Parts: sequence; structure tokens; C-alpha cells
Amino acid sequence: MSADLGYLSIAEAAARFRNRTLSPVEVVEALLDRIDALDGRLHAYLAVMAESAMAEARQSEQELLAGQDRGPLHGIPIALKDLYATAGTLTTAGSPVLADWVPEEDATVVTLLRQAGAVNLGKLTMHEFAFGPPALDDPYPPARNPWNLDHVPGGSSSGSGAALAAGLCLGSLGSDTGGSIRGPASFCGITGLKPTYGRVSRAGVVPLAWSLDHVGPMTRSAEDCALMLQAIAGYDPKDPASSPAPVPDYRATLGQGLAGVRLGVCRPYFLDHEALDPDVRQGVEQAIAELRGAGASVVEVGLPHAEQARIANTVIMLAEAYAYHEQTLQTRGHLFGKRLRLRLLEGGLLRASDYLQAQRTRSLFQEELGAALRQVDVLITPTSVRPASSWATFDPAATARDPSYTAPFNLTGVPVLSVPCGFSAAGLPLGMQIVGRSLDEATVLRVGHAYQQLTDWHTRQPAGLG
Amino acid sequence: MSADLGYLSIAEAAARFRNRTLSPVEVVEALLDRIDALDGRLHAYLAVMAESAMAEARQSEQELLAGQDRGPLHGIPIALKDLYATAGTLTTAGSPVLADWVPEEDATVVTLLRQAGAVNLGKLTMHEFAFGPPALDDPYPPARNPWNLDHVPGGSSSGSGAALAAGLCLGSLGSDTGGSIRGPASFCGITGLKPTYGRVSRAGVVPLAWSLDHVGPMTRSAEDCALMLQAIAGYDPKDPASSPAPVPDYRATLGQGLAGVRLGVCRPYFLDHEALDPDVRQGVEQAIAELRGAGASVVEVGLPHAEQARIANTVIMLAEAYAYHEQTLQTRGHLFGKRLRLRLLEGGLLRASDYLQAQRTRSLFQEELGAALRQVDVLITPTSVRPASSWATFDPAATARDPSYTAPFNLTGVPVLSVPCGFSAAGLPLGMQIVGRSLDEATVLRVGHAYQQLTDWHTRQPAGLG
Repeated sequence: MSADLGYLSIAEAAARFRNRTLSPVEVVEALLDRIDALDGRLHAYLAVMAESAMAEARQSEQELLAGQDRGPLHGIPIALKDLYATAGTLTTAGSPVLADWVPEEDATVVTLLRQAGAVNLGKLTMHEFAFGPPALDDPYPPARNPWNLDHVPGGSSSGSGAALAAGLCLGSLGSDTGGSIRGPASFCGITGLKPTYGRVSRAGVVPLAWSLDHVGPMTRSAEDCALMLQAIAGYDPKDPASSPAPVPDYRATLGQGLAGVRLGVCRPYFLDHEALDPDVRQGVEQAIAELRGAGASVVEVGLPHAEQARIANTVIMLAEAYAYHEQTLQTRGHLFGKRLRLRLLEGGLLRASDYLQAQRTRSLFQEELGAALRQVDVLITPTSVRPASSWATFDPAATARDPSYTAPFNLTGVPVLSVPCGFSAAGLPLGMQIVGRSLDEATVLRVGHAYQQLTDWHTRQPAGLG
Repeated sequence: MSADLGYLSIAEAAARFRNRTLSPVEVVEALLDRIDALDGRLHAYLAVMAESAMAEARQSEQELLAGQDRGPLHGIPIALKDLYATAGTLTTAGSPVLADWVPEEDATVVTLLRQAGAVNLGKLTMHEFAFGPPALDDPYPPARNPWNLDHVPGGSSSGSGAALAAGLCLGSLGSDTGGSIRGPASFCGITGLKPTYGRVSRAGVVPLAWSLDHVGPMTRSAEDCALMLQAIAGYDPKDPASSPAPVPDYRATLGQGLAGVRLGVCRPYFLDHEALDPDVRQGVEQAIAELRGAGASVVEVGLPHAEQARIANTVIMLAEAYAYHEQTLQTRGHLFGKRLRLRLLEGGLLRASDYLQAQRTRSLFQEELGAALRQVDVLITPTSVRPASSWATFDPAATARDPSYTAPFNLTGVPVLSVPCGFSAAGLPLGMQIVGRSLDEATVLRVGHAYQQLTDWHTRQPAGLG
């Protein structure tokens, strides 16, 4: 089994395809073998599409040999969280409600990845309808954390995080409504990007909460996120929230380094909070010191309504999720997993004014964050309050009391990259967020890339997977 | 008393100021006399600002004589619905809740009108917080319909409609959340424009329902609406919904006529509905025939969800109005008029999912209307189901059951002009709507102007006012 090929970055694989030291067929074969060997314990995949993946790999190989180069994703094996519609293939969103749903059309981003030549290995495990909390007796078996199988991988893009950490794909698409890309990225030691709201089309992606849903790449590095984002970003008339803003060349600015970059930190909520795990704090402080050592400056900024923003995000998410599922709850409610059904029904108890006051908090926090981001280029925060919990001690109620470092940025729609920034004493990955201005993914990726040039956390591999 | 000066159009007054056959001081004096003589019975004004108006008129006169020409509104006496903040002057929104509110700053559009040289005659009567229904025992005495004092003037911009119909100002600003500009325009025989959502700033305007609120001009003619819109349209960073789209020259296209213009009609809801008053229908059918005779073509379009759109508009309005007033209701609820308080409290009973399902209907109807407006240049509909009711027979419950020809276009945010199109057998004005594409006020105004070149309904004056 070729662990090495499983842990290639997209950029490395693309380079080796072009200098002919490697072929898409070799990589896809190696990854399918690896999935076969490991995924029985990891449950990262809900469905492996071995046959079509091999056909796509062979086609990519032939095209590349013939000089028909579709760009850096050509021949790259990726996998999709199972809420992306794939034409002719089951798309479950992790729920028995959609157990038999075979979409007729690909999601827009799936089409874009196909056009870019990416090879689809299969559909990845996720929390039911992206709305956890997960449990070991969920309708579909939950993904495990490759760094410690007794620990949660984070969610809701749990399979995406686990598959990357275990070397079972080179890139993946997740989705993020309150932190569902960045949480598993942090817990699994990989890199995940929540792009700006509207930057990437959500047409054909099963919604959780319209006004908070973002889709984006999960990869091994900031550079790989840039490559995937380049392929999927852009206007789509099928998504009413899609932005018409032009898409820059993300790779062009990736290597511009840290000189002159102003990093914002907001200590009270994001670094000095009593709930923050000391290992996480230490990892992020160390990272800030390294970024500063490489030329960035650090500025304190105020975000006094961050906690209210977290609560507003929860209220809006509950209300919109209930509204989306209301009819199904009334007609086929028994099909939902028990925990999800109860959580959705909570959303049905919210009043219109709860929702609207949360939207007013949103406007307030958008202004506050906008003011902070006029003082600095990016904000640096931890991604999660603590490293991955064990299944035995995982407590959704505690999560609901903790600060959230991810949700405030769903509320505001700004781009955020999560990058690995070390390990806890127990050997679990730690994650750091780089938060940028609206539509300024370029700077977020540039800072992440610079950090990954200074450190090698993103290249570490869990031991003992076999 | 100079009735003639009260019924000048803005365009005529502006021309006469420049050929020196009339001065701003003469017009303002005449109008203040007229208000003095008539408004005791009409209650169009909540506050007349005689002293500052005369000072502004004198300043305008001097500037014009000195060749400092601020454009077509220079020296024109206008008046403001009393929900526009005016620095240093009481702004009540028609409610005892704001009986003592003296804003520190002008609303953005008030500033823009001042810069354009308009003279502010005073603050106009309105339904409490723009959310009727009105009654004769309301906290502030309601405006009467100048065409028949026993009839309602429509609302919530009731004073604006009444003041124009009675020749007590040459132009006015209203606001429109479900029809509050167009309804009184129709009932009072004047012209009113609800511009595209976001086209005119709402900063400093007391809100009713954020996502449905529009502000716009009420005048004697489409041409005058164009002149006022030109002065107030444009981006304002103080209004989060403000559109950055450039503002065209509305007057430049006003005279282009009807050749080649495609008019859409949707018969089932808007012309063949059983609730539609036969006089209204007859007036609009006649107007369509006249437009066709002058070169326009007529196309049938489908809007099958118009009634759902009306209901969605009501739900969203109730929910947002409650959320805005929630804190005041809890702490000083006794200050609201009884009818308004009960209506607001209804909004507090709505669930978040009621609101969100209404928003989903909104998306659906936006697509439906967008498709219709790709087939035609404008839609033609009646403005109101029937002419103004008498105070004795006015029944808010019936209004709630009737179709609404105005509210579906608040939901979609497209521009709509209401123009007078005849009189009922009882001598009450009838109104017709011209509904355009988003940001295409130019075409809406052009069709309205062409119609007003063909007809003289907009020049009629109520008899017997004295």
C-alpha cells in the first residue's frame, strides 16, 4: 500500500503528472487500494466509485499524454461530501430521508471539477443533513478521526477531514454553515477554506441554512485550496446568492510572503477566553510569533459582539434548517435520525422575531467586523476551542455553551482558511483560522501558504493506520 | 387664494422661475395661504414650517436671480411624510411613541432635496408608523380625501396624497411597504413612484419592514416624479440595502413615446378578479386601449403566484414590524394607538418558519415576475381593487381579504408608477400601475409620461375645496 501517494499534495501530483514520473492511473489505483484497506475502520466514504474513478483516471492519463492539459486538477483524485448532487449516483446528505435519491444533474461545482479533469473517488460521510451532532449509533456509521480512532473527526464534513488525514484522497469538497469545513480541518490536521458567501455556487448542494451555507475545498495545503478554489469559484445564475465579482488568479499572489501584512488578534474572545484549551492557545500564539518573525505585524482589534454573533448564527441556522425540512418533518418525520429530528423541531419553536433579532445582530456584527478588517489584512484566531474530543467524552451540550470561533464568520460571510498549527500533548492536531475581507481569498491563502512554508504541520501523517 | 399656483407641476413652476414670470416666494406664499385656508378640514399636514419655508423660498429666489441654479427642484415647495427625519424638527411617524422626537440629522434624501434647492413646507400626516389601518379616532387626526372629505385618502402616505390633490404642495416624499405610496396616489388622483428597492436611500427614514420598505416621490405627473427621483436616487453607504448601480438621466428618455413598447397584462389576478370594482377595470382597460392606440403592443403574461406573494408580503411585514417595535411594545406599549398595538402584537405570534416560508414564496415569485418581465417592458395593472371607501364603510378586514395589486411588487422590489386613469361613477379617482424591471425606472416613467401626454386625468382638480 502506497501511503506516499495518498499524502501527495495536489500541486506535487500535478507536477509529477507533467514530468511523467507519475500517472493519474497509478495514484487512483493506490488510493482505491488504500480506501479498501483502511476505510472499514475509518468510515470516511459512504460510497466508493471505483469503476468510474478508474475510467476517469485512464481518460485523464490519455488526455495528458496527448497534451490536452485541463490544468492543475487534471487527473487529481478528489472526493465529495455526500450532499453534492452527482448525476446518476446516490446522494444521501447522510440521511435516511434521501436514502434513495439519485439526482439527475450534477451540482454546478461537480460539473466544474469534472471540466477541470478531477477524478471523483466517491461520496464522503457527513453528519446527517450537515447538522450533527453525530453519535456512534447514527443512521450511517460516523467517520473516525485518523489521528485517534476513539476521537471525533469534527463535522459536519467529517468524512472529508478523515479521508484527507488518512491519505484517502488528495482533495475534497466540504460545506460550512457554522464551521463544518474548518472544524474537521482543525481536528484532522488538514487545511480547509470557507470562501466568501456567494463566491462558490451552491446550486445542487443540499442546503442546511440558506443565508449561512458556504461550500469550499478541503485539502492538504493552502496552495491546494487555491488550486481547487480557482476551479470552482465564479458566478452561477442557478445560485441566487452567487456573486458576479470577477475571480482573481489565486496562485499568482500565493508566494508574496508576509512583509507588510497586518494580522489582527482579538484576545478577549479568541485567545484569552477561559474555555480555550491551553494547548490550542499555545499553538496559535506560537504561530502568531512565527508569522511576526517572518515580517507580519500584529494589531489588537475589538470584536465585542462575537459571542452574540455565535448565538445569532445558531438561531438563524435552526430557523432556516427547520423551514427547509418542515414539510418532510410533517409527512415523513420518522425517517430522520432521532437526534436530528429533535434538533430540527427546536427550530420550529423559534418566533419570527427571534430570527429577525438574530438578523439584526448579524448587521451589527458585520459592521463591527468590517471596521476591524479595515485596520488589518487578516485576523488570526484558533479554529476550535479544544482539540477533538473522544467519542466517550464528546458532549454536544458543552459545545453549545462554548465560544465558537467559526460561526461568527458564517454570519458575516467573509473568507476563512483553517490551517494545522501543531499538536496537543495527546497528539491531536490543532488548527488556526486566517480570516479575511469579503472576496479577498487571495490574501487569506497567501498568509496560509506563507505559514506553511515556515512550518510543516500540514505535512504530518497519523501513525499506526497501517 | 391662488388655486392655480397650488396645482402647478414642478416642471411648469421650474420653467416659470427661469423665465421670471413667477418666483419661489410667490408660490410658497400662495401655498402657505392655501394650507391655512384648507388644511383645517383636510389634516394633510401635521406640522407646517411656514417661517423656514419662507426663508428657503427667499434664498432660492436670490440664488436663481444670481444665476446659481441648483436644477429643476430649486425653489419648489415640497412636503415630507412625517417619517423622514428632519434635523431640529419633530418627526413623529404619526405615533405618540415619537411625539417628542427631534432628530439631530436629516434623512439622506432630505439632505439631497435641500441640496437641490427644494423648499420644505412641512411634515405630512400618515398612518401611525406607516402601518394603518387608520380611523377617525386615531392618535393624530387622519387626513381626508380632497375629492370627497367623507372618503379615505388611502395610506399610509395619506397626507402626501391629500396635500397634492388639494394643491397644498407641488411634490412630496412618501414611503411604500405594501402600497403606501401607490394606494394614496390612486385614491387621491395623483402620481406616485415606488422606485426599485435600494435605489433611494432609507437612512433616516423610520422603518416599517426593512426588506420591503421603499421611499419615493409623489407628485402631479410622471415627469415630476422623474425630476424628484433624479435628485434623490443613488448609492448611500448609510443604507445597507442601497444599490451602487449608476443613476441614469431619467428626463433624457422621458419623451421617447410608446412605439415598440410591450405592455404585459395578467388578466386572472389583475383584471378579471371577481373582487375588482367594474369602474376600476373599465378605467384600466380604457388606458390599455389608449396606450395600444399610441403604438404599444399588449402581451398576456402569467403570474400564478401573485396572491401567495400578497400573503407573503403581509407575513414579512408583520414579522419585521414586530421585531422593530418589540422592545418599545414591551416597555412603553401603552403609547401606541390601540389598533396599531394589536396589529403589531399579531406579528409577535408568527413563527420563524412562517417568516421563512414567506421568504421562499418571495424567491419563487421573484423568478416568476422576472420571467414575465423578460417577455415585456412593463406590466399594466390597476393600483387598487376599488376607489376610495367612505370612512363609514371602510373595512380593514375586507382589505385583508381582497387581492393586493401593490404588495407583490414590494416583495420583488421592482419599480412601479401609479398614475390616475379616470374617475368612478361617484367621481372618485382611479389609478393604474406601470410595473417595470429592476432598476428600470426610466421605462416606467417614460410609459407614464406618454400616457399623461395622451390623457389629462392627472391635471384634474377636486371641486368645492374653496
